[in-house]
Amino acid sequence: MKLEMGRHLEEEEDDDIRSEDERIEIDHRHDQTAAIDGEIFFIPPLNFSMVDTGVFRSGFPNVSNFSFLETLGLRSILYLCPEPYPEPNLEFLKSNGIRLFEFGIEGYKEPFVNIPEDTVREALKVVLDVRNHPILIHCKRGKHRTGCVVGCLRKLQRWCLSSVFDEYQRFAAAKARISDQRFMELFDVSSLKHLSSPLTCFKK
Amino acid sequence: MKLEMGRHLEEEEDDDIRSEDERIEIDHRHDQTAAIDGEIFFIPPLNFSMVDTGVFRSGFPNVSNFSFLETLGLRSILYLCPEPYPEPNLEFLKSNGIRLFEFGIEGYKEPFVNIPEDTVREALKVVLDVRNHPILIHCKRGKHRTGCVVGCLRKLQRWCLSSVFDEYQRFAAAKARISDQRFMELFDVSSLKHLSSPLTCFKK
Repeated sequence: MKLEMGRHLEEEEDDDIRSEDERIEIDHRHDQTAAIDGEIFFIPPLNFSMVDTGVFRSGFPNVSNFSFLETLGLRSILYLCPEPYPEPNLEFLKSNGIRLFEFGIEGYKEPFVNIPEDTVREALKVVLDVRNHPILIHCKRGKHRTGCVVGCLRKLQRWCLSSVFDEYQRFAAAKARISDQRFMELFDVSSLKHLSSPLTCFKK
Repeated sequence: MKLEMGRHLEEEEDDDIRSEDERIEIDHRHDQTAAIDGEIFFIPPLNFSMVDTGVFRSGFPNVSNFSFLETLGLRSILYLCPEPYPEPNLEFLKSNGIRLFEFGIEGYKEPFVNIPEDTVREALKVVLDVRNHPILIHCKRGKHRTGCVVGCLRKLQRWCLSSVFDEYQRFAAAKARISDQRFMELFDVSSLKHLSSPLTCFKK
């Protein structure tokens, strides 16, 4: 019993680890909008934030977040998990004319770290392209994979590393990983500097 | 010695409490930009983030943050502390044509809570006015006073309360205050709903 408890806790801690057959479970029980006393409220996705003009970040959006996402007028979504995109989300994209970019990065568990640098680089090209804006970057929790992509974007924007890490930690909180921060530190942005971008601090 | 240690820790915990004579100390030792191996890096202010298009939030900017702030092309700054604005910051504003709006809200210590609702309401009118954009909202740490103003703005944007609190806690972290969250919950946005604003989710 004690062993099982331990195992359960470990799984909770490392919720980015899933077996291949495991699908991301999206909660479809909610209505698209919440209403209290006749007033309509919006529900942003978990860990939602604006990164820069036309660039947003979050955890996995579910049906309850769709009406909020509509207010952003998204042109594209950058999805960073290898699991197939859920059907309700695909329908939402279709009905709102939103393009899906998929760059599947496996969830992992320290110290078995393997963030594919080339994949992050290709993902960043999509984010930098103003024709894809407004764009939402998301993975499952909006902490590790999204945090790494946004962190590399900040390096391109010439943020000093301590500020990059501070922002990463704000979203990852207790789940912050040294390995992610090392990845961002070592990520070479030089091959992306020739790209033009409307983002702030983006100077060649 | 033990007592002194305890006192020191307590002061660290409650860094929003200052005597009337105490001035906000700004670190002017840094150069305006950091350079490593000839590359220039930007240093965003403590707790910096984009709130919405044309609206930013942070802790107190010092000289080391000025070149970063220049990239935002700010038109105004909303300053939420009662202490006089430091001379180097006033010079920065002058040389960049940035207007300063001051709404001095005292730092406080629970349970002696007195966030002036009218002041927050007037501050929000400044934030909602697109003529003041891009605007930076800041206090000292970018946690409590800034967090309350942004939280009330989110209510105006019809965010559900749990999302408002989640965002507040992301910035306040271990210093999150129930009293701030209660203030946001009870804050009446109805008198501001008639205002027009370019912010997302801002519907009458």
